[in-house]
Amino acid sequence: MGLLIVGSIGLDDIETPFDKIEGALGGSTTYIALAASYFTGPVSIVGVVGDDFSKDHIKMLEDHNIDHEGLQIVEGGKTFRYGCRYHYDLNTRDSLFTDLNVFESFNPIIPDKNKKASFVILGNIAPKLQTSVLEQLDNPKFIVCDTMNFWINGALDDLKKVLGRVNVLIINDSEARLLSKEPNLIKAAKIISDMGPKYLIIKKGEHGALLFGENQVFSAPAYPMENIFDPTGAGDAFAGGFTGYLHKNMELSFENLKRAVIYGSIMASFCVEKFSTKGLENLSYLEIKNRFVEFRELSSFD
Amino acid sequence: MGLLIVGSIGLDDIETPFDKIEGALGGSTTYIALAASYFTGPVSIVGVVGDDFSKDHIKMLEDHNIDHEGLQIVEGGKTFRYGCRYHYDLNTRDSLFTDLNVFESFNPIIPDKNKKASFVILGNIAPKLQTSVLEQLDNPKFIVCDTMNFWINGALDDLKKVLGRVNVLIINDSEARLLSKEPNLIKAAKIISDMGPKYLIIKKGEHGALLFGENQVFSAPAYPMENIFDPTGAGDAFAGGFTGYLHKNMELSFENLKRAVIYGSIMASFCVEKFSTKGLENLSYLEIKNRFVEFRELSSFD
Repeated sequence: MGLLIVGSIGLDDIETPFDKIEGALGGSTTYIALAASYFTGPVSIVGVVGDDFSKDHIKMLEDHNIDHEGLQIVEGGKTFRYGCRYHYDLNTRDSLFTDLNVFESFNPIIPDKNKKASFVILGNIAPKLQTSVLEQLDNPKFIVCDTMNFWINGALDDLKKVLGRVNVLIINDSEARLLSKEPNLIKAAKIISDMGPKYLIIKKGEHGALLFGENQVFSAPAYPMENIFDPTGAGDAFAGGFTGYLHKNMELSFENLKRAVIYGSIMASFCVEKFSTKGLENLSYLEIKNRFVEFRELSSFD
Repeated sequence: MGLLIVGSIGLDDIETPFDKIEGALGGSTTYIALAASYFTGPVSIVGVVGDDFSKDHIKMLEDHNIDHEGLQIVEGGKTFRYGCRYHYDLNTRDSLFTDLNVFESFNPIIPDKNKKASFVILGNIAPKLQTSVLEQLDNPKFIVCDTMNFWINGALDDLKKVLGRVNVLIINDSEARLLSKEPNLIKAAKIISDMGPKYLIIKKGEHGALLFGENQVFSAPAYPMENIFDPTGAGDAFAGGFTGYLHKNMELSFENLKRAVIYGSIMASFCVEKFSTKGLENLSYLEIKNRFVEFRELSSFD
């Protein structure tokens, strides 16, 4: 009945115009699970790391009631490591290196106790692995999927098979245009919805997010942020907040999905306020609720 | 006590991926006045055209209760003419030619009866001309100003003098970044507000608009449009709808400015649905009100 998350776990070297950090905890699973943990728990993760992965990171996950039985630790292996440098405007980044290490041969194995998970988040991994996850599960109720340009360009047929099985696809605007081959986002959303997902969320960074489904559109504002320290993980924090909120109250109406999009946006806004996962490590539910009120004030009119 | 608009009036040759039109009615004043005319009237315009300017255009303006006593018609002169071609995604355009003609020596002369106008919209013209307009007026209550990259780059000192006198500046996101030398729009807004305008509106095209003022931020969604035929004039239609709505009810609270931003967005959305000014020529107030309800549904959550 739980919430299961499958994706990457890694260590990041990040350079922004403000600061620089080496070997910081990263990976899609990590950000998703931390964001979701504020709404529901235990959240279960499946991933792979090397034996260089710090016990402190494991401890931090445990402190957030994150179940890591599905975390494979490869003896003698090295953890996935990624380096990037953000540009002056923080909207673009250059990848400096990508050392896949143990992630290269990642084969997600779902522990027996997680096979009945009712909610699943398929983080940004190869579509074939996403399918493999779904095939190990016992009829999950609600499947949320992320992907990226790399798979749209390189594994489109596999990706389309996944899209035929998921409830929600969460991508950004450039990915939506690439996947649909259509520059207009409203038309793009229709084309992508025809590929399978009942709901589509298009994230637009500093411009908020759009939710499509049931012949409706919801436009969520972005939180007005003056100080973005590190955009890494914002999209994953969104997916975690969105799905965690829905898993908490199990109401899958369009009205409640709208609220979930706001909670996703809130977790993304906290994420980018600090380096690495730090922005998601020490929040209170009151802080999250207060930001929900701020979001409503930001966009309400009558 | 009326609403006065000063800016360009011209004829446009427009090419989009869908169609092409030559010698269509254009210019900032035209779009602003038409959009405002659905809320209040008579709206008065000041501008210049040549004697090639069609009587049909004048008739169309009159049909919208637009007072054109301030429209100078230069005998033997040719009307300002502009040609552009929009790219495939409609977000960018190439200018093909700009024949200033009579607009090159435009000297706005405000008719006596308009000198007591309470609301003024300074369309996108040289800041020196905007100042000249303000100096002819008898203490207007509410001044709305547009500008563009060309003046920010080429006449910044003159522009800053205008900004010190206006109530609202309406610009797009790239202009805001250029004017403030700051990529973060929230920081940019603070820098620009310090230049004088009490309120700042940053238009973000397909991503909606932001209103800043009184230490508050309002995020207005964009209307989800599948079929944009011609983006020309959208920003001017926004300014006209925004100011026309405010002039109608004379309430200048932040709450009412939020509504005005929505009415501006509505007029921009109608504008781009047809070529040239056609999208603004035959609207009913009911259509406008209905779209207001659609905007609310698009962005509301609780």
